[in-house]
Amino acid sequence: MTALRITGIRVTPVAVQDPPLLNSVGVHEPFALRSIVEVDTDSGITGIGEAYGDAPTLERLTAVAPALTGLDVFDLNELNRRVTEALGCAVRPDALTPLIGSGSRAKAVAATAAAFEVPCLDAQGKAIGRPVVDLLGGRARDRVPYSAYLFHRWAKHPIDPGYPEDDWGEALGPEGIVEQARRMVARYGFTSLKLKGGVLPPDQETDAILALRDAFPGHPLRIDPNANWTVPTALKVAERLTGTLEYLEDPVGGIAGMSEVARSTDIPLATNMCVTSMEELPEAVERQAVKIVLSDHHFWGGLRATQHLAAVCGTFGLGLSMHSNTHLGISLAAMTHLAAAVPGLTYACDTHSPWQREEVVEPGVLEISGGAVTVPRGPGLGVSIDRDALGRLHEQYLRCEIRRRDDIAAMRVVDPDWTGGRPRW
Amino acid sequence: MTALRITGIRVTPVAVQDPPLLNSVGVHEPFALRSIVEVDTDSGITGIGEAYGDAPTLERLTAVAPALTGLDVFDLNELNRRVTEALGCAVRPDALTPLIGSGSRAKAVAATAAAFEVPCLDAQGKAIGRPVVDLLGGRARDRVPYSAYLFHRWAKHPIDPGYPEDDWGEALGPEGIVEQARRMVARYGFTSLKLKGGVLPPDQETDAILALRDAFPGHPLRIDPNANWTVPTALKVAERLTGTLEYLEDPVGGIAGMSEVARSTDIPLATNMCVTSMEELPEAVERQAVKIVLSDHHFWGGLRATQHLAAVCGTFGLGLSMHSNTHLGISLAAMTHLAAAVPGLTYACDTHSPWQREEVVEPGVLEISGGAVTVPRGPGLGVSIDRDALGRLHEQYLRCEIRRRDDIAAMRVVDPDWTGGRPRW
Ligand SMILES: [Mg+2]
Ligand SMILES: [Mg+2]
Repeated sequence: MTALRITGIRVTPVAVQDPPLLNSVGVHEPFALRSIVEVDTDSGITGIGEAYGDAPTLERLTAVAPALTGLDVFDLNELNRRVTEALGCAVRPDALTPLIGSGSRAKAVAATAAAFEVPCLDAQGKAIGRPVVDLLGGRARDRVPYSAYLFHRWAKHPIDPGYPEDDWGEALGPEGIVEQARRMVARYGFTSLKLKGGVLPPDQETDAILALRDAFPGHPLRIDPNANWTVPTALKVAERLTGTLEYLEDPVGGIAGMSEVARSTDIPLATNMCVTSMEELPEAVERQAVKIVLSDHHFWGGLRATQHLAAVCGTFGLGLSMHSNTHLGISLAAMTHLAAAVPGLTYACDTHSPWQREEVVEPGVLEISGGAVTVPRGPGLGVSIDRDALGRLHEQYLRCEIRRRDDIAAMRVVDPDWTGGRPRW
Repeated sequence: MTALRITGIRVTPVAVQDPPLLNSVGVHEPFALRSIVEVDTDSGITGIGEAYGDAPTLERLTAVAPALTGLDVFDLNELNRRVTEALGCAVRPDALTPLIGSGSRAKAVAATAAAFEVPCLDAQGKAIGRPVVDLLGGRARDRVPYSAYLFHRWAKHPIDPGYPEDDWGEALGPEGIVEQARRMVARYGFTSLKLKGGVLPPDQETDAILALRDAFPGHPLRIDPNANWTVPTALKVAERLTGTLEYLEDPVGGIAGMSEVARSTDIPLATNMCVTSMEELPEAVERQAVKIVLSDHHFWGGLRATQHLAAVCGTFGLGLSMHSNTHLGISLAAMTHLAAAVPGLTYACDTHSPWQREEVVEPGVLEISGGAVTVPRGPGLGVSIDRDALGRLHEQYLRCEIRRRDDIAAMRVVDPDWTGGRPRW
């Protein structure tokens, strides 16, 4: 095969309807932003990918894209070099959201490289007629389990979003959460259940977990308050939930705080906040801050970089799970190929999928059933863009005024004094 | 592309003439053993690889080979599963040679998987018309630098090996080593120079390094006594060589000893003895035993596993170099593709190539010039087996009586009391 060289890249920002899900810093806005990345090659094959859609990400993607012209899609080392060079010193070390830890230049480079690596792998797979999982070493599993991602939520956005609200209704306590879980489990067959915490007083969230335990005996349970607790609060919760949780995700902020919690509880701690780059691993290992790292190819540098993370975790006795931000089907496909190829990724992965009513890929390939997604069989990622949907979601992006996710500002609409400051409890 | 399924595997042991190179445990025997692995697929494509040729390795390769029938060559996770299962509990944790550390079950699995992974990658590359380096992420460099591997040696084997001795002559002190280096540098253009030590009293070997420094100012220098020194001896040598060595390789045995040396010298320590598997990394990191790990895909589990090692090293601030045992051109090709794909492999790799007068691959692709090998451009590894040579070297294997490398026994021919016990100084 001759080179498969990039002739052009199209980055299309989209906005998707998002329900009023609550978290430690505020509430989801009516629209979540993503960008759809299409990489054209001289062979006529186009690779696709999906990345964050906030303004700084878009800026980076469009700044880097021209530098990738002529790149062979198999040359991922060169991709990283060009991304690093093209971003240069201009890159601001801003965090993508306060929910996934601190920002750094290396993280911005990793996220930008990831946005292009996935379309390159998709193009590779299409060129050779193989699913992406085969480019990553083949299937360690054919079905990738996902967890039910439960959220405290309002029935409606505080301001009319301009579209009909969904019918999930309000969930602001144990009963609502259990009801939400019942519906999600019935529809998708999830076994692992994860509660986004840090929203209500910790005792109420603990009650919700205990209610889930009673309603779903034997199902692995997790709670993630996104660093909204102090160490003493975390330890009080841990005491009540010992023997009940599969893992406790980011109860407090920072490696130091996590280490302190870890020393006093038997519940394994997990993170997608205090360790979100290779740079942060050595200290976390040394201080035994976490037992499980939540991978996310969007910010760990891509599918292959996440496999490297898996190797580091395996070497140092850390477990591996997978984090999710609001995403569409291209990312779900990428997450599924990746998780299928990583033997050590033994926990059910997170996904926001059940919360999205809009989609950018043609239907039929990615179905969550029995709590899992079967690895797509087609070449590349195995999913294709629904052009009408892409157009519609891009129009929606142009109409909506959101350009950077801001859950804090969204909360201020109902609580003018809201700061999103943590830890709250 | 449909599956590329394995229909059969041929493992051909070969013996290659080897000069009387000296090391800490004894002397190279007149023949070194390798095995040539050919993996046939249902598409007619055959992938090739090269592994150790000692009896325990052959036993494992032939025990595992039947279990790989039907395997898709892209399915490397399944390869690892099948190798692990096929080896089962039968695998003995013996070391391949006392020069590359202790044995373990995991290491035997890794070495066996590696022996089949390389032919699978070669077949993949041939199927899609791409060099192996492209399956590993593409070229971080197009030319892979190697080091001149200098050995104390005799002119002749103590017993007539049945073939004409080479014309390198004896090297048993600084003068001989410098002369050897001059010839090797003149012929191959090496810049990095590595002396296999642990053979003569440490002061003489130190003198040899200082003589190399004077003869080749500015060339990176290394010495590797293969754990034949005590900690005080190592520190004495280190004192004389501070500022002169690029790195000091395995001066003493074990992570504890290496840590002790590391604490008292500024010379970076390297190893292919105390860290030869992922299992050994955490302790080495914690105790700061080494600054550089010498990779070797033959025992680290293959090309992809070595990329994982590179990620671990990068994460924990360790440098990466590459170890060599006596090998032929298939391994040199594999080493070159791998090293080209690993950005963090910044040291010149070791190779025994200049010492081998026999070859199993068709000539013309792998030439060391300017101290480096250009990554082969052809599909897969880019080298092909010279069938006549393979037949000849296999005949030589059948005739020679060596079935397991034993440098200690070879030394006993001239020194009946020789035990190879370490540390000697
Ligand atoms: Mg989280
Ligand atoms: Mg060595």
